[in-house]
Amino acid sequence: MNRKLPQEKSKQACDLLRELDMDAWLIWVRETKLMADPAIALVLGGDVVWQSALIFTKTGERTAIVGNYDAQGIEALEVFTKVVPYTQSIRDVLRTELDQIKPKQIGLNYSRDDYAADGITYAMYNLLKEYLEGTPYPDRFVSAEPLMTRLRGRKTSEEINRIQTAVNITEEIYNEARKFVKVDQTELEIYYFFHQRMQAHNVTFAWDADHNPAVDAGPNKEFGHAGPTDNKTKTGHLLHFDFGVRYQGYCSDLQRMFFFGAAQDIPNEVQTAFEAVRDAIQKVAEFIKPGVKGYEADDITRQYLLERGYEEYGHALGHQVGQEAHDGGTLLGPLWDRYGASPKGMVEVGNVFTLEPHVRTKNYGQVSLEENIVVTKKGCRFLSTPQTELICIS
Amino acid sequence: MNRKLPQEKSKQACDLLRELDMDAWLIWVRETKLMADPAIALVLGGDVVWQSALIFTKTGERTAIVGNYDAQGIEALEVFTKVVPYTQSIRDVLRTELDQIKPKQIGLNYSRDDYAADGITYAMYNLLKEYLEGTPYPDRFVSAEPLMTRLRGRKTSEEINRIQTAVNITEEIYNEARKFVKVDQTELEIYYFFHQRMQAHNVTFAWDADHNPAVDAGPNKEFGHAGPTDNKTKTGHLLHFDFGVRYQGYCSDLQRMFFFGAAQDIPNEVQTAFEAVRDAIQKVAEFIKPGVKGYEADDITRQYLLERGYEEYGHALGHQVGQEAHDGGTLLGPLWDRYGASPKGMVEVGNVFTLEPHVRTKNYGQVSLEENIVVTKKGCRFLSTPQTELICIS
Repeated sequence: MNRKLPQEKSKQACDLLRELDMDAWLIWVRETKLMADPAIALVLGGDVVWQSALIFTKTGERTAIVGNYDAQGIEALEVFTKVVPYTQSIRDVLRTELDQIKPKQIGLNYSRDDYAADGITYAMYNLLKEYLEGTPYPDRFVSAEPLMTRLRGRKTSEEINRIQTAVNITEEIYNEARKFVKVDQTELEIYYFFHQRMQAHNVTFAWDADHNPAVDAGPNKEFGHAGPTDNKTKTGHLLHFDFGVRYQGYCSDLQRMFFFGAAQDIPNEVQTAFEAVRDAIQKVAEFIKPGVKGYEADDITRQYLLERGYEEYGHALGHQVGQEAHDGGTLLGPLWDRYGASPKGMVEVGNVFTLEPHVRTKNYGQVSLEENIVVTKKGCRFLSTPQTELICIS
Repeated sequence: MNRKLPQEKSKQACDLLRELDMDAWLIWVRETKLMADPAIALVLGGDVVWQSALIFTKTGERTAIVGNYDAQGIEALEVFTKVVPYTQSIRDVLRTELDQIKPKQIGLNYSRDDYAADGITYAMYNLLKEYLEGTPYPDRFVSAEPLMTRLRGRKTSEEINRIQTAVNITEEIYNEARKFVKVDQTELEIYYFFHQRMQAHNVTFAWDADHNPAVDAGPNKEFGHAGPTDNKTKTGHLLHFDFGVRYQGYCSDLQRMFFFGAAQDIPNEVQTAFEAVRDAIQKVAEFIKPGVKGYEADDITRQYLLERGYEEYGHALGHQVGQEAHDGGTLLGPLWDRYGASPKGMVEVGNVFTLEPHVRTKNYGQVSLEENIVVTKKGCRFLSTPQTELICIS
C-alpha cells in the first residue's frame, strides 16, 4: 500500500479548503470495495467497510470515523490526525465530531458536471440528512466540486512523475511494436503482442483490457471503444492504435498511426490529413496556458481542422489524465449538453491533458493522434514525444 | 470478456421485473470505469463512458442508450435487444424510449439499507429528473432494491460453480500452507507465501491485498481489516487466517485456525472455544433454509455462544458472497442500526453466505472460523469443508 500519495493529497485537500474558504469536506461512504467515491483513491488509498465519515477541515484536521474492524488499517495509513472507531452506529459519533468542528459549510461529493467529483449516492445523501436531523448541518451541505476538481486536477510532482513513467513505457511498447507489426496480421495478433509487452514492463491497463489497445486496421474499422477483430493489416492501409497503461496507479493515453508501405507511397490524402492533425496539436499546445478555458482550447483545433475542409470530430479535444485515463475536471471540449459545464473550467498549473483531434479521409478511414501534456506556469510541456510522421512499416 | 453471465443475469432481471410487477428498471450511469453502479458488473460486464441509460422491462426488452463511441462495444456483448447511440445529448433519445415503454414504475438503484443495491449518485438522480422534467416519469421513480437484492442474491448455477471453484482453490492453498507454516515465522512471511500460491493457482484477491490473507499470530493481535506484521508465530500459540480469492469474477471467504503444538497440548480453554465456534456453525447450518430471516439465523449462533459464557461478537454471523466478498442483500446479522434493514431480509434459494462467529478466550486471543454455504430448496449445503479440529503444526 502506497501511503505517500494519499498523505500528500489529503494535506492538499486541507490547503484547498483554505483557498476556497470552505470549513469542512466530508466524504461519506460505505463498502468502498464494491463502489468507491472517486475521492477515496486520492485521499485514502485504502478501503472501508461500514458507513464511514472522512472529515477534512481548513484548519488541517483530518478525522476518520470508521467501523471498529477498519480502524487499525486506517490508522496505519497515517493519513488522518484522528481515527474514531464505532461499533453499533456511526450516528452519535458523527454528530459529536461535527459539533466540535461547527463547520459553516460542509462540502459533499456531488457534481452534475464533473463525474470525477461525483461520489455520494442518492441514498447515502438522504441517510446523512437523516442522521443529522435536528442539527444545523444539513442546511450547510454544498457541492465539493470546486475542491475535488482542483484536488484531482492539480497534480503533485510525485503524480506527474508517475504519469511520465507511464507515458515513457507506453512509448517503449510502441517502439517494440514497430518491429513486430507486419502486413497480413490480424488486429487481435497485434493486440496480444501489446499485452505480452505490458507484462514484461510490469504495468496494468489504463482502461478495460478488451479495447486496450484499440487496434484499427484499414479504412472500414470504426474507431471507438470496440475491441480488436480478425480484420487484417494490408499494404497501403493505415493502422491506428489507442493505448494506455497504468504505472503505480497513474495512467497514460496515447494514439499512434502506422502506414504499411514506404514513405513515398503514402497517398497525398493521407499525408495531408496526418499533417493537419499533427499541426492542430502543435497549434493548441502553443495556446494552452493557465487561465484559458477548456472550450477555448478545443475551439483552436476544431476551427483549424474545419478550415482545412474536414468534418467536425464528434468528441472533445482532450481530457485530463491521472489515476484514471478519463480523470474528470476541466475538459478541453465543445460546449455540448453532454459535457455539461466541464468545458467552461479553467486550465490550471499541474493539469495533465490529452490532445486528440482526428479527421476522416475519403478513402483511408480516420487519422487520429493523441499526445499527453502537463500545464506549466507559462504554458504547457509535452509528456509524450509527439508523433511527427507516419510510422512506415514495409 | 465473459458474455455468458451478463446475458444470463440480464434475462433474470426481466424475470424479476415480472415477479415483482415492476414495469421497468433503469440503470443510469456515466464513466463506469471510475465508479460503477454495482449492477454494471452483473448485467453489463463492460464499461460505458458517457451518460448511459440501460433499461430493462418486464416484457423482456433490454435497451441500452449509450454514447456513439461505446455503442459498438456494447452491441458486441449481446446483452441488449436494442442499442441506441447518441452524440450530443442523451436527453431526447431517453425521453423517446421511455415514451415507447410508458412504464408505470421505474426502478432506480438507490437503497438505504443494501449497499449492493445502491448505485445512482445524488447528482445523477437530479440530472435524470432534470432531463425528464415535464414528463410523468420522475413521479414514477421507485427504489429497485427488491429487484437488485434478488438479482445479486439468487445465484445462477454458473455463479455457484465459480464460487465453488474459488472455495476449492482457497482450501488447496490452506492445505499447502499447512506444510509451509512453522514456529518463528513472521505474519508477513506467511502472508507472502499465500500470494505466491495465488499466482500459481492463477486467482486474484477477493478483497484488498493489504489484508488478504489476514494473518494473526498469538493472543495480542486484534482481528479485523489490518494487515500482517512482524509479529511471530510461537509454540503454544494460535494462528488465525481470513483469506479469500476471486476466480472468474467470483469470490470465496474462509477463516481457519492453526495451533502450534501437538493435539494433546491444546489448552482446554482453546479447545472448548474452538468447539463452541465449530458447533455454533453446525447449529445454524441446520437451521438455515429458504424463508428464515437474516436476524433469526444470527440469533442462533449469538445465543449459542452467549449461553456458553462468551462475550457477544461485535459483527454479523454472515454476509452474502458473490462478485464481492461482501455481496450485499440479506445479512445474517443482528438488528443493529448500522445494518439497517438488511438482517430483516429473507434467506432465498441460491443465496451464498459466510458463517463466521467468533469468541474471545482469556489467554489465547480470539478463536474464529468462517465457512461458506449455499441455500438449497430444503436447507443449505456447505461449499467449504468445515474445519472440525485445530490444524496442529509441530
